[in-house]
Amino acid sequence: MSVTKALGFTAAGIAAGIKENGNPDLGLVRNLGPDHTAAAVFTSNRVKAAPVLWSEQVIKDHKLQAVILNSGGANACTGPDGFADTHQTAETVAAGLEIGAIDVAVCSTGLIGTRLPMNKITEAVPTLIQQATPEGGADAARAIMTTDTHPKQAVAHGDGWVIGGMAKGAGMLAPGLATMLVVITTDAVIGADDLDSALRTATGATFDRLDSDGCMSTNDTVIAMASGASGVDVSWQPFTAALTTVCHELAQQLLGDAEGASHQISINVRGAASEQDAITVGRTIARNNLFKCAVFGQDPNWGRVLAAIGTTDAIFEPDHLDVSFNKIKVCIGGSIGEPRELVDLSGRAVEVEVDLHAGEHETTIWTNDLTYDYVKENAEYSS
Amino acid sequence: MSVTKALGFTAAGIAAGIKENGNPDLGLVRNLGPDHTAAAVFTSNRVKAAPVLWSEQVIKDHKLQAVILNSGGANACTGPDGFADTHQTAETVAAGLEIGAIDVAVCSTGLIGTRLPMNKITEAVPTLIQQATPEGGADAARAIMTTDTHPKQAVAHGDGWVIGGMAKGAGMLAPGLATMLVVITTDAVIGADDLDSALRTATGATFDRLDSDGCMSTNDTVIAMASGASGVDVSWQPFTAALTTVCHELAQQLLGDAEGASHQISINVRGAASEQDAITVGRTIARNNLFKCAVFGQDPNWGRVLAAIGTTDAIFEPDHLDVSFNKIKVCIGGSIGEPRELVDLSGRAVEVEVDLHAGEHETTIWTNDLTYDYVKENAEYSS
Repeated sequence: MSVTKALGFTAAGIAAGIKENGNPDLGLVRNLGPDHTAAAVFTSNRVKAAPVLWSEQVIKDHKLQAVILNSGGANACTGPDGFADTHQTAETVAAGLEIGAIDVAVCSTGLIGTRLPMNKITEAVPTLIQQATPEGGADAARAIMTTDTHPKQAVAHGDGWVIGGMAKGAGMLAPGLATMLVVITTDAVIGADDLDSALRTATGATFDRLDSDGCMSTNDTVIAMASGASGVDVSWQPFTAALTTVCHELAQQLLGDAEGASHQISINVRGAASEQDAITVGRTIARNNLFKCAVFGQDPNWGRVLAAIGTTDAIFEPDHLDVSFNKIKVCIGGSIGEPRELVDLSGRAVEVEVDLHAGEHETTIWTNDLTYDYVKENAEYSS
Repeated sequence: MSVTKALGFTAAGIAAGIKENGNPDLGLVRNLGPDHTAAAVFTSNRVKAAPVLWSEQVIKDHKLQAVILNSGGANACTGPDGFADTHQTAETVAAGLEIGAIDVAVCSTGLIGTRLPMNKITEAVPTLIQQATPEGGADAARAIMTTDTHPKQAVAHGDGWVIGGMAKGAGMLAPGLATMLVVITTDAVIGADDLDSALRTATGATFDRLDSDGCMSTNDTVIAMASGASGVDVSWQPFTAALTTVCHELAQQLLGDAEGASHQISINVRGAASEQDAITVGRTIARNNLFKCAVFGQDPNWGRVLAAIGTTDAIFEPDHLDVSFNKIKVCIGGSIGEPRELVDLSGRAVEVEVDLHAGEHETTIWTNDLTYDYVKENAEYSS
């Protein structure tokens, strides 16, 4: 049910013919109110797709009544014509719902640098609107898939209110957000400032700690909408906790379905002089292709971990570094620790722990290994 | 002939049994003088191997009489014991040559985090010294190979003097230097300051522009030695030009032999507001796995190039960016340019040109594609 689990939302997902294979490619999530509070975070990439440029504008009044999402084309790097396409998409939805285009956000995902087939989208919008129901969440989640092998949905329950979410994304999971589109809905009564701050806190601790391949998309968008339909006021703390749970579950689903990966790797960095140092070290390890290949080869190659750490400006002494793979401390004090033969990396989950012995801060970054299938998907599939 | 092309040098390469497969693994380059001028640059990785820590010390007086190099083990992350091993190696060579250990640099390459078989090295050194001849350059070049498929050597001739060089490295070719060991010799008469400055200039324009997989080694070392045996004084300009030629040729050989690569990619960034901007943009593209996979798949995916550029802090406007693949301008003004179908990426050489339209600076970064074989080599081979 995902985005339609909370009261006050309808959704739909249909095949508009944007994808050549005839799979669902157009989704809608509608907020029926009574509140239309909204917040969003977007890619920090300076090359932003037209739908991101559009949605950044319409979210400024902290209100949305609908989000339309398409797969089959990113509408990125398409110039003024591409922006006009996004605008037209929003206007078409707005006309069908008898609202203003300023209350319609647009999300797109797929190949960069090609125009969308606008005639197919405008033709399909009336059907999309007509099919939107309180049971349509799963259809919407399916319509936004690209190389995802399954739809991603999550739900968390509060005291008289609910948060639901859907996500797509299987590659380019990187900082600042992943190539992912996420829509989160809630029937709680919450102010715009609280929703915005809760969303930034939740995404900062979840999606922003995901770094599958170090690449950052032009289209990443996370939108949260609150309908207030439960009639229950929430306070920031429990709402943010529940929102973080939903974001964490979606993030783990994204990681689990990352293109071609055979291992899910958590990199816990502790003993850092600052949280930023911990993030920098974790991310640098996560992006090191030699480390990622080693995990694919089930080799607990701690030397590559140290070589990666050594390229950062974090505070540490090389001869104070400890590294564990799945609880076996293979590197102690920057040198040889327990025998690497004791480490078993045959399972899908791999835990790497680094202690910088330079302070009290820590964080965890999640990533994947680098495999033949990653290369295959990204050499054969254009995005 | 490489390092023994210049007058005043002898070299040797033998199998000391460090590598389990019995291949050559120990090399020596000796400077017979009359001058013993030397300069060196090392990895900027903060996790430095024992031989780097040693060689950084002994180069401080700008004099060397010999370099001993081993493959089969990096002697990195081996703690004080590993440093003692390097020291002992230098002392053993020094004793055999009846010189001081302070005149002996040490280079190692291979797996990080394991001790070297010191008994084999100390046993082999007398033979190594005995076999060093003015014809031994090729043997030395072969002894330092790891996953290299062939030895790398280059020579440039000046007016009465010669520069020769050898290199190893096939993976971890990255900034600050690649995982590579390079020894350069010359019989020119040149002062220590000039040699140092020439070496920094030449490596800055060549090895430092190489970024095969974004990873940085713990062991990278480039050593230059001048014997003065030609008796010919050189001025800085022609010497630096010839040295740059030798470094460029060796760098291109390294790139051509990079682990598992099927394309050699030059990324020319122009129209940059500063040289640093050009370098940052070129390097960011070179390290983007999605771009690298696209080239492997012969897909001129300029959208991934723009997405990579967008993550940098270089000065540019997204709608002013031009991108060409093999001279076909597939992206003009940040949007769709000439048809991507016109681009042929079936050849090994790929030229990517980016115009930031933000200034007058430019640079070229060289890299490789990301292939099944890269993953295979780095999943199965420990380094």
